[in-house]
Amino acid sequence: MAEERIWTAGLLVIGDEILSGRTQDRNIAQIGAWLNLQGIRLNEVRVVPDVIPRIAEAVNALRAENDYLFTTGGIGPTHDDVTVDAIAAALGVPAVVHPRARAALEAYYVSRGGVTEARLRMARVPEGAALIENRMSGAPGIRVGNIFILAGVPHIATLMLEALAGTLEGGKPLLSRTIGCWGAESEVADLLREVEAAHADCQIGSYPFFREGRVGANFVIRSTDAAALDACAEDLVARLEAGGREVVRDGV
Amino acid sequence: MAEERIWTAGLLVIGDEILSGRTQDRNIAQIGAWLNLQGIRLNEVRVVPDVIPRIAEAVNALRAENDYLFTTGGIGPTHDDVTVDAIAAALGVPAVVHPRARAALEAYYVSRGGVTEARLRMARVPEGAALIENRMSGAPGIRVGNIFILAGVPHIATLMLEALAGTLEGGKPLLSRTIGCWGAESEVADLLREVEAAHADCQIGSYPFFREGRVGANFVIRSTDAAALDACAEDLVARLEAGGREVVRDGV
Repeated sequence: MAEERIWTAGLLVIGDEILSGRTQDRNIAQIGAWLNLQGIRLNEVRVVPDVIPRIAEAVNALRAENDYLFTTGGIGPTHDDVTVDAIAAALGVPAVVHPRARAALEAYYVSRGGVTEARLRMARVPEGAALIENRMSGAPGIRVGNIFILAGVPHIATLMLEALAGTLEGGKPLLSRTIGCWGAESEVADLLREVEAAHADCQIGSYPFFREGRVGANFVIRSTDAAALDACAEDLVARLEAGGREVVRDGV
Repeated sequence: MAEERIWTAGLLVIGDEILSGRTQDRNIAQIGAWLNLQGIRLNEVRVVPDVIPRIAEAVNALRAENDYLFTTGGIGPTHDDVTVDAIAAALGVPAVVHPRARAALEAYYVSRGGVTEARLRMARVPEGAALIENRMSGAPGIRVGNIFILAGVPHIATLMLEALAGTLEGGKPLLSRTIGCWGAESEVADLLREVEAAHADCQIGSYPFFREGRVGANFVIRSTDAAALDACAEDLVARLEAGGREVVRDGV
């Protein structure tokens, strides 16, 4: 079988509020899951503050290492929204007002006091960029080269992802199956290692929990091959049950 | 006034389950907030998969750039728990069984089937390391140099942070005040910029929301100086109210 091309993405989360702990990030999980559906693997995430050189440095590292780079945060109208300037700096291009973004803002703000200078900041893009639709707020996301610049507010990022769905080239989606098991994961560590070794196209992750007064673990099997995934799951269930374990198909 | 020394930390979140979107990370926010209380600023976060060279590379980048490095995840008993090996590799030292960690595991597992080879993996540390207590599971966290290796399960990470509280040298804690305001943040963007410029010891972040059918924003002022923070907050409230805005002290 030919080696399969794996498509990867980096994610840069931009914002002091994530680093300070004020805001619980929701975009890493949402974008990671969405990328899986596109056949693209989230390969690395970085979180940096609202500081132009820090953003630019991370952008250049992550875009070079991955097929795609997504960013979240810092595209609003206020002084702490510096993502567009930072990405323009990283690319060595000016930030310019995009005519269609300006038109979208003018339409959105026609009944909300008109487009001010601050609001016009939201129409700025790195030169050469295209827009990513956002039917919610009038402020678009931005695509420039292999970089996708999304809003930080999770439900607006969701809308931008919906607009992008199916438009990015990827490989086979990464499939997963979860097998739950009561008892300490340390008791089945050897068994897990053996099952993984016997199924070369699958990886197994072990995620322990403590629930209803008992310990247990969920074993997540991942593969791009549905048949390999099923075979690995059956093998794992059979070996766990042969060892007298209480197994819960589809996870606890 | 002498320039104040700012203490920084990096955080490395280790785990395929975070990148795939299966698991919502809770450690970034918890550790960011905890570090603030210690007078240490979370300066960068990276998330990488359970792959030894990827972990080692990120460890070496983040520990060089910061006073402290925290890691979460990958210290359990199963084959996908490779954090200790990766950090030992990054430091160029072997992974060894720590006698006190072995003793803690033996005490914990005396009524749970004894210490197996898999469980003994949880007593391995990079050579030269000290332990971070964990009264929950018997598997300790690890301190080696400026690196703090914590569990990925958030409530166990919490217990390890409690054991570390007050033991790390830091600067003044970063204080914050939140001022809420109804209406679009774009309407007050100039005002925010002016207030921040007038209060050199303070930064202001603007976080818009949509709630109860109305838009609004919370403005978070951050400073290590309580008096400067209060003065900035009063100035911001006064200017917002002078502009006819509906202000909510302590945030919406």
